[in-house]
Amino acid sequence: MKFTCEKSILQEGISTAQKAVTGKSTMPILNGILIKAKNNEITLIGSDIDLSIETKIKAEIIEEGNIVIDARLFGEIIRKLPNDVVSINTIENNSIEILCQKSRFTLIHMNGEDFPLLPSINENMIFSVPQRILRNMIKSTIFATAQDETRPILTGVLFEINNNNLNLVALDGYRLAVRSENLSTDNVISAVIPGKTLSEVSKILEEDDENVNITFTPNHILFNLGYTKIISRLLEGEFIRYNSIIPEEYNLKVIAKRGDLLHCIERASLMAKDGNTNLIKLSMEEENMIITSNSQLGMVREELNIILQGQSLQIAFNSKYLIDVLKIMEEEEIVMEFSSSVSPCVIRNKEINNCTYLVLPVRLLNS
Amino acid sequence: MKFTCEKSILQEGISTAQKAVTGKSTMPILNGILIKAKNNEITLIGSDIDLSIETKIKAEIIEEGNIVIDARLFGEIIRKLPNDVVSINTIENNSIEILCQKSRFTLIHMNGEDFPLLPSINENMIFSVPQRILRNMIKSTIFATAQDETRPILTGVLFEINNNNLNLVALDGYRLAVRSENLSTDNVISAVIPGKTLSEVSKILEEDDENVNITFTPNHILFNLGYTKIISRLLEGEFIRYNSIIPEEYNLKVIAKRGDLLHCIERASLMAKDGNTNLIKLSMEEENMIITSNSQLGMVREELNIILQGQSLQIAFNSKYLIDVLKIMEEEEIVMEFSSSVSPCVIRNKEINNCTYLVLPVRLLNS
Repeated sequence: MKFTCEKSILQEGISTAQKAVTGKSTMPILNGILIKAKNNEITLIGSDIDLSIETKIKAEIIEEGNIVIDARLFGEIIRKLPNDVVSINTIENNSIEILCQKSRFTLIHMNGEDFPLLPSINENMIFSVPQRILRNMIKSTIFATAQDETRPILTGVLFEINNNNLNLVALDGYRLAVRSENLSTDNVISAVIPGKTLSEVSKILEEDDENVNITFTPNHILFNLGYTKIISRLLEGEFIRYNSIIPEEYNLKVIAKRGDLLHCIERASLMAKDGNTNLIKLSMEEENMIITSNSQLGMVREELNIILQGQSLQIAFNSKYLIDVLKIMEEEEIVMEFSSSVSPCVIRNKEINNCTYLVLPVRLLNS
Repeated sequence: MKFTCEKSILQEGISTAQKAVTGKSTMPILNGILIKAKNNEITLIGSDIDLSIETKIKAEIIEEGNIVIDARLFGEIIRKLPNDVVSINTIENNSIEILCQKSRFTLIHMNGEDFPLLPSINENMIFSVPQRILRNMIKSTIFATAQDETRPILTGVLFEINNNNLNLVALDGYRLAVRSENLSTDNVISAVIPGKTLSEVSKILEEDDENVNITFTPNHILFNLGYTKIISRLLEGEFIRYNSIIPEEYNLKVIAKRGDLLHCIERASLMAKDGNTNLIKLSMEEENMIITSNSQLGMVREELNIILQGQSLQIAFNSKYLIDVLKIMEEEEIVMEFSSSVSPCVIRNKEINNCTYLVLPVRLLNS
């Protein structure tokens, strides 16, 4: 194998493929990146079986070949080279030679044939979403996935396609996040993608309107960005029927400025850190929301103008769950719907109906 | 006690005083900041005994008084308040009330009288240095202090004033750093300041030509920035006679581009990380320095143009020690002086003679 390539292009390709290399695999070869040199193109592949990333870059191929190189070391070496053409070729003793200006590295390589094959995926049914939108949808839901593995299905994000909608849904038993976008298709799909995988996917998605093509198989999802393909295993099992959890009715509707509410809750939560309960109380009456919290060190009272429709209410929350939601939302004004001090609170945008958040309250001893 | 103050001013003052609060003190009151309200001025003091920082800010004092408030919580609360006037006053139950717009905090306070007094320092002999210069001198030497406590004196930086010079010196048994500036004084001083303290001092020093006034007592050093005073305990004991360590003669002098040499060594060190030895070999002959390193994973060879005066030499180093020095130096060209493969290497600027670095080589089995 022998090829030359611009350092910056090679570096970007390694950085993409490397996102699938965890360095924790029990198979030594998965600590490496597979480099395939063929047809004036280098294909770089990283994989931890659950997640595989393949990216193609332009290069001048002098001799075709497949080899596997330690991902971390290869990435560090290329990153530190001067900005110039890099030449890579195989030499004796299962090694490659990396040349750039007056630098010469030799590195042991592994055999390309030993690298696991990617699942072959038939891309005959494709859903397309702008990268920017999918990136935002992932960010808007992934924070609500469960962090412990007691119910593995909850560590993933549900991709649900029905009624011309793509819905991303995450929930962890304390809160629920739903983010929706229109998608013109008659197909119906329901698949759960591991949160870990999606987090790497969102790092690769660009902040632009280029489409990402998505294909589902019974066990995998493929994100095709053209130059880069990301394949993730799906989580097995049935996702919770989240629609039945979201209350349809309410006794109290509150409209608030999102930024102001966030700052009030962040300040109140400073006094709520004691004992890690993060407990804050909301009291809504007439045109005011009063937020209070106290600990051994003192107390805090925050006051916020709101528009209130319905009955007055006192309710307590873990401030972290409200802060997570308010930080991720983007509209200036939000709507909160309450039924009682022991029922979940539903949070939505005031204008654009593309997300639904649900947060469980904390039941107080005296309520 | 009662006063009002701009939020941003109060926040900056707390941030300065808080740099002396480690949160690890066995005296609970030292987790707090002393707030003294007197004469239209607030004085904020943080201390861990070894290091004390006092800073004054403008405020409108309505009622004088002294209290102590938990530093971390107070800092977080003020930082999160809106940008507006903050009003602080004592209330019943040993508490203070913090008011800003519609936010109201109450916090338990401790008694100002229980806070340890700062050492009283007579400022009748003062050395003045521009803050920017002192900051640079600290940065240029502090990295060479010892990190373990086996010889406590080596965890500090020597401040040495003699022959119209201020010298800062640090060494850890493997390398030595000396940074000098002119200082017009006939006095002779030698004092060792704890590295931990100096690191906080350098964060407070501004990147400008305003002077910092320095006063020494037998046990303390005072850095007076006008609005802020920093008092540090000195380390006890005699510093090593560092001058006798620096070789005066050499058999080989090398002039190299600092940036290029740094990049070559950084790349070579990528192969030297195996086994944490960081071992790289330098081979100097004619107009070239060849840098090599190898590990189980492969090998590297870097080549650099140099100006060589004297005998050819092969010598090995822990790459970390060379990288630390080359990163901190600022001139484009540097001079390296060698005597033999088992003698220290001296590194200086080519033009401005204001620093001397010394790095011990690694003795190779076959040399």
